[in-house]
Amino acid sequence: MEPAILLPAASYEYATVQKVYGEGPAEPATDQLAAEEPLEIRLGYAVAGGRSHRTLSVTMRTPGQDEELAAGFLLTEGIIHGKADLLGVRPCPDVRKPEEAGNVVRAELADHVPVDFQGLERHFYTSSSCGVCGKTSIDAIQTTTCPVLPAQGPHLAYATVHQLPARLRAAQAGFEQTGGQHAAALFSPAGELLLLREDVGRHNALDKLIGAALLQDWLPLHQHVLLVSGRASFELVQKAAAAGLGILAAVGAPSSLAVQAAERFGMTVLGFVRNERFNIYSHPWRVGPAGE
Amino acid sequence: MEPAILLPAASYEYATVQKVYGEGPAEPATDQLAAEEPLEIRLGYAVAGGRSHRTLSVTMRTPGQDEELAAGFLLTEGIIHGKADLLGVRPCPDVRKPEEAGNVVRAELADHVPVDFQGLERHFYTSSSCGVCGKTSIDAIQTTTCPVLPAQGPHLAYATVHQLPARLRAAQAGFEQTGGQHAAALFSPAGELLLLREDVGRHNALDKLIGAALLQDWLPLHQHVLLVSGRASFELVQKAAAAGLGILAAVGAPSSLAVQAAERFGMTVLGFVRNERFNIYSHPWRVGPAGE
Repeated sequence: MEPAILLPAASYEYATVQKVYGEGPAEPATDQLAAEEPLEIRLGYAVAGGRSHRTLSVTMRTPGQDEELAAGFLLTEGIIHGKADLLGVRPCPDVRKPEEAGNVVRAELADHVPVDFQGLERHFYTSSSCGVCGKTSIDAIQTTTCPVLPAQGPHLAYATVHQLPARLRAAQAGFEQTGGQHAAALFSPAGELLLLREDVGRHNALDKLIGAALLQDWLPLHQHVLLVSGRASFELVQKAAAAGLGILAAVGAPSSLAVQAAERFGMTVLGFVRNERFNIYSHPWRVGPAGE
Repeated sequence: MEPAILLPAASYEYATVQKVYGEGPAEPATDQLAAEEPLEIRLGYAVAGGRSHRTLSVTMRTPGQDEELAAGFLLTEGIIHGKADLLGVRPCPDVRKPEEAGNVVRAELADHVPVDFQGLERHFYTSSSCGVCGKTSIDAIQTTTCPVLPAQGPHLAYATVHQLPARLRAAQAGFEQTGGQHAAALFSPAGELLLLREDVGRHNALDKLIGAALLQDWLPLHQHVLLVSGRASFELVQKAAAAGLGILAAVGAPSSLAVQAAERFGMTVLGFVRNERFNIYSHPWRVGPAGE
């Protein structure tokens, strides 16, 4: 067998961030972000008189090895059962829009492979595209019709940001016991913990938090601050924006698309919030030294 | 606003595991697992002469606050835009099978809310259900028709398991640079790193790895060992089983459903593999002291 094959350098994107240590001041720095872009997988198959194709799924992924991703997805979803079922996978050149270039692959099924599209629809379960826009993810990133968050409050002091992770940990029952729960926490601009939800899925933890706020008629959450225990993906930024949240703080790293979406939505994204430091990735005007 | 609302105790499940420190021997212990079960969200809506309903999604979640999860999901997916759009959410009593009890909620849309099911299907993107079985997740867990992994090899020495995380880290380019990449790595039973893939999505990293193996005609991976950099969910166990992998080792914690599925599939799951120790959650016969 051949040796380990590592990732190409194209899987990262560079961003200019503001690094905050203690009371600041914030200092500009260059940060590497994990690249995140939507990949559309199209399925090519034999029909009477030729071949046809259909979109199978759109998934948020790090670009690179897209042919492998499509082949693995088809196998692990039970659509193919071995290499002989797959004629090939290739990048799709006939995309409808410029922004789809490089983000569409087409997998060609061998003629003997049955495709039960109705069954696929029934058996697959759904995840989110862009609920803000109600479009497919690839479209959503490029659209300018997404709602923009208000250009007002909350304003968060650096010292308050530093306190958020400890307050989350103190209240988070699950992680210490199982090591397996993601958390989403809602704070006031003064750093008061208002609501906390945990789940094995990070998107579920946030949906529970937003659902609880909705059922208590707190929406839109324009005056609140969200902290998530892990990384910040596009999906979390999109869900937070749908609830009207202006600040998303993450204990982990944001992805490239999370930052791009936050720029678009007018959302302040803070990452690596821990040990008295954090990075500001977008709309830094909502955070500053105390008393400012 | 009311104070933070924490999780009920029902969000955890207890499991008997084998704890391995250094060269062993393995010692039985009780471990708490993050509970993971499928939740089906049904959408109730007005039709001429009454109300109808339809399954909107099945998501793997930690049980608890299911009404909030459904409400938040509807909002963040753009199906509702506020509390007034929702008549209510309640657990669904008329389930078709015993195993669905407690895992189905029905959200009632207000009459003025338009539902574009065709649009929803087009705009949502899909994630996996059980590719092994080709059924919905709720069904999949209960079925006995899933393929069972061979009751033969590989046999892995404790000392080899301890070495896997360091070998993954040494080869993993992405995490150190961005803090934002999940990794999936394929090893030989001797602990040799054969293949490594990274992605912002843990399921994508594994699909890329399996796809690479498929395209090189290595499947089924009965003689290989899989290590994932984070937690082990049901979805990862299902995908690993589809590729024929007998051992799934995780640097993080497995979920309850991951362990249940591994028991069913005949897969050995190791968790918290780090610092010269790990836990064995299922089918321990594939690991043992050196020379055994």
